[in-house]
Amino acid sequence: MTTSKDKDLKLIDFDQKKDQIMDLWFQDGIEYGHGCSLHIKIKNVLYNQRSKFQEIVIMETEKLGKILVIDGITMLTEYDEYAYHEMIVHVPMLTHPKPSRILVIGGGDGGTVRELLKHPEVESIHVCEIDEGVVYACTEHLSSLASSFDDHRVKIFYEDGAKYVSKYNQAYDVIIVDSTDPVGPGRILFQRPFYENMKKALAPQGIAVTQCESIYLHGQVIKGVHSFAKDIYPKLGYYLTMVPTYPSGVIGFYFCSILRDPIKDIDESRAMKLQGLRYYTPGVHRAAFSLPRFTETYFHTG
Amino acid sequence: MTTSKDKDLKLIDFDQKKDQIMDLWFQDGIEYGHGCSLHIKIKNVLYNQRSKFQEIVIMETEKLGKILVIDGITMLTEYDEYAYHEMIVHVPMLTHPKPSRILVIGGGDGGTVRELLKHPEVESIHVCEIDEGVVYACTEHLSSLASSFDDHRVKIFYEDGAKYVSKYNQAYDVIIVDSTDPVGPGRILFQRPFYENMKKALAPQGIAVTQCESIYLHGQVIKGVHSFAKDIYPKLGYYLTMVPTYPSGVIGFYFCSILRDPIKDIDESRAMKLQGLRYYTPGVHRAAFSLPRFTETYFHTG
Repeated sequence: MTTSKDKDLKLIDFDQKKDQIMDLWFQDGIEYGHGCSLHIKIKNVLYNQRSKFQEIVIMETEKLGKILVIDGITMLTEYDEYAYHEMIVHVPMLTHPKPSRILVIGGGDGGTVRELLKHPEVESIHVCEIDEGVVYACTEHLSSLASSFDDHRVKIFYEDGAKYVSKYNQAYDVIIVDSTDPVGPGRILFQRPFYENMKKALAPQGIAVTQCESIYLHGQVIKGVHSFAKDIYPKLGYYLTMVPTYPSGVIGFYFCSILRDPIKDIDESRAMKLQGLRYYTPGVHRAAFSLPRFTETYFHTG
Repeated sequence: MTTSKDKDLKLIDFDQKKDQIMDLWFQDGIEYGHGCSLHIKIKNVLYNQRSKFQEIVIMETEKLGKILVIDGITMLTEYDEYAYHEMIVHVPMLTHPKPSRILVIGGGDGGTVRELLKHPEVESIHVCEIDEGVVYACTEHLSSLASSFDDHRVKIFYEDGAKYVSKYNQAYDVIIVDSTDPVGPGRILFQRPFYENMKKALAPQGIAVTQCESIYLHGQVIKGVHSFAKDIYPKLGYYLTMVPTYPSGVIGFYFCSILRDPIKDIDESRAMKLQGLRYYTPGVHRAAFSLPRFTETYFHTG
């Protein structure tokens, strides 16, 4: 067995005898502490650079298309990224009555912007991505997502998302936080001041949705966000999407709204007109807010 | 790297240097063909015997409790088996108005029987499990599930499930097919004659639910079952549960009913009285039937 020197990226020479060729497997790092880890067979490494902030790797996998890995953790595969991007985007967009000014925090791969551009109401998309390296790598090697950045309505700001959002008042209809996990620079995006500043940056009917981890693996993170978000936003929700290559196979989003209700206010007529969807339906939208019973304790904070 | 001689059970001496002790990982075999595989860290092997039908292994894992592996494929872990067993049981049981006579095909681990016994309406549970070895192993090492077999209402038959069900007429209110995958002896449970015989064995308000694989990995299997089941049962459905240690993190059930509708006919008052649930709620029950858009093609058969 050989592993790369870099602790973040483990390439394992695996089962060598069986196939008489070297099999390379990428081991996702995120579940290591849970004694459970997804291994993905790869064909070759397309990009491997350390940016100012993190290590960015794009690989061609055996069966799952290309994979984007940041600091050893799977960000997306072409195989199932639509399940994530459609749900982080179309749930808030179809709950808002006329979402024209959009802010994306993170989202440097372009998948969220690609889905946003399916909505004819969109007039401007500001993307605040801290790491120019992610946009560069994805523009070069993941054009199925990043070619969305070419649209004239999109403007990218290479800034800290928390600082960026604090500068605005009622400027956005929808804010989407397409972030990494609450470690390192991402931690601030899971804290109260950021949620307060997002509310200030939202227009009166505004909606914010944030990547908020797995119900199976990160109960404490969800509980933490809920403990302060419930004091800030009149309408709240947490909803799920099934992404096989994420740890535990499921990831959730925290839904924060000033007026609009994520179940009652779905605009089904606009939903019917969206093209090129593979995961989202209005039925899936509603169903995604029904959570397994064990999550009830996450939302019972005093 | 060392692997066991047995091709079905891969124990990998992994990352040996890091912890200065031998780490053992079990590699689930089912997703190998998809270039993607879950590895689970184990502490020790509790049981490893080849029965007349298959290789049965029970291991203690590092973080997920005990794991039952049959022919190299994860059947359950104590960590998340409730997500599977609650949904295969409570959805049909709470859709049926008075489920008293129950047949389980497969289910030799006892988890399905454990959940069935939570319903006071149950008068008899017949378990038709082909392999006595599974019941023996689980009784010895997985009492959190298999102790349910001690209940006086439970009777186990060590027979072929397809043959068993063909002998009965209107004998059961609910039939639950808690089977393995459609390979080897399990294949017949995914075919038309079995579904026809189940209907014959069901009482007039009867409901049958079958383990029916993953929407992400087994579209052809689901499509195949639907292609004939739609001609046999007046009311049909396919519903999901999220099980992190199954390939793709999700598994589904095919719902076959003669009269009862799985959404409209939920008995919420009986649901409220059930004790010890961690996954099922009536909301989750309804939501589980909302499927991602890409599955629509599975159910459009001519």
